[in-house]
Amino acid sequence: MAEKATIVVFSGDLDKVLAAFVIATGCAAQGMEVTMFYTFWGLNVVKKDKGPIAGAKNWMQKMMGMMNRGGISRLPLSKFNMAGMGRSMMKKLMKKTNVAPLSEMLAMARDLDVKMWACKMSMDVMGVAKEDLIPEVDKIVGVAAYAAEAQQSKINLFI
Amino acid sequence: MAEKATIVVFSGDLDKVLAAFVIATGCAAQGMEVTMFYTFWGLNVVKKDKGPIAGAKNWMQKMMGMMNRGGISRLPLSKFNMAGMGRSMMKKLMKKTNVAPLSEMLAMARDLDVKMWACKMSMDVMGVAKEDLIPEVDKIVGVAAYAAEAQQSKINLFI
Amino acid sequence: MAEKATIVVFSGDLDKVLAAFVIATGCAAQGMEVTMFYTFWGLNVVKKDKGPIAGAKNWMQKMMGMMNRGGISRLPLSKFNMAGMGRSMMKKLMKKTNVAPLSEMLAMARDLDVKMWACKMSMDVMGVAKEDLIPEVDKIVGVAAYAAEAQQSKINLFI
Repeated sequence: MAEKATIVVFSGDLDKVLAAFVIATGCAAQGMEVTMFYTFWGLNVVKKDKGPIAGAKNWMQKMMGMMNRGGISRLPLSKFNMAGMGRSMMKKLMKKTNVAPLSEMLAMARDLDVKMWACKMSMDVMGVAKEDLIPEVDKIVGVAAYAAEAQQSKINLFI
Repeated sequence: MAEKATIVVFSGDLDKVLAAFVIATGCAAQGMEVTMFYTFWGLNVVKKDKGPIAGAKNWMQKMMGMMNRGGISRLPLSKFNMAGMGRSMMKKLMKKTNVAPLSEMLAMARDLDVKMWACKMSMDVMGVAKEDLIPEVDKIVGVAAYAAEAQQSKINLFI
Repeated sequence: MAEKATIVVFSGDLDKVLAAFVIATGCAAQGMEVTMFYTFWGLNVVKKDKGPIAGAKNWMQKMMGMMNRGGISRLPLSKFNMAGMGRSMMKKLMKKTNVAPLSEMLAMARDLDVKMWACKMSMDVMGVAKEDLIPEVDKIVGVAAYAAEAQQSKINLFI
């Protein structure tokens, strides 16, 4: 049976999410069974890149939705974001040096059977509904499902 | 024998600490033996919500103490803190969606026998004395105790 | 055979890197075989403290190099950096309370046979060449080498 790796993607920062994907695909390429658990700001990675979120029930969730537009192409850098300039520079550097952009990394992760789980509680707090998520998400789960998976995993990371 | 989970709580940000508690109580609810090791800014979580710290021996530690007032209700958000507005909004959203506030999560963690360890070295550097900590803290330990516990743990996280 | 611990050092912030070294040396002192994998901003920890980087091939990599001067003595704090004042205060507090500075921690880690690996992909993206790294770095590796090591490790952390 394949060994497991479970990665909590808490951050929604481009650089950290990139690291999460590099590790996830790297482990999957070694034959491991990998799960990425998207929670809090990490939800932005698996949110559709579109207008207002469907699940928003009050002005606070609408505002949260606006500040976290979602869509893998919009993630900021954790450092030197400089109103998006750092992000755009990082993307250009990745392209120049043949590092795949996040959208391709996500596709690659899917090809390697990396599982994508979205955190139910974070979705409730932020007013994100199922239809706000990209179709690559396998499951919407609570912390119990995460804890069960993590307990069986050889590698556990919080990013 | 129960399997173990050890979580380093390095961050003192509301959202990250919330994630730490959700995971800690989630693992404990699955029957795991969980330890939370509070270090650096994470010390704020287990500091009493009161005035100047007792252990401060010089102006730098006093200033550190002022900037890290401590008390679980004062933690800022890691993103969009906006002078406390983000924090207050997050708290309201948690309430509206029936997510327990941090103070209740701490009590829940104690009920589930989650162990609370404070990092000795961080306390020394920041001038935090034993009497500055909340009574829920079981032990003040060095890194050796943490490393021994982590080595026996199935799940290790750094938050 | 000694049990293993593998720490991804993603952050280049003084406080987080300090935590990484404390944990790495703590685990090594317990007899574990420890590897530190320096990636993204963490590369700054193992970059020489000198002028422009040799590997920079375009203005973006040069600018990245300037913003990430490197050298273990230059790392900022993740919080309250206040243009270096927080960092200098933290260093003074560490000195006053007999906590070893990072440069000594690095030497201590080497004495305890902690392995230092630099991430090839991050070096390529940021234009960091082999000659830009300090001699303490054992190896420049890809994610496959990291994943293989992590899979064998009892403790895995992402800092």
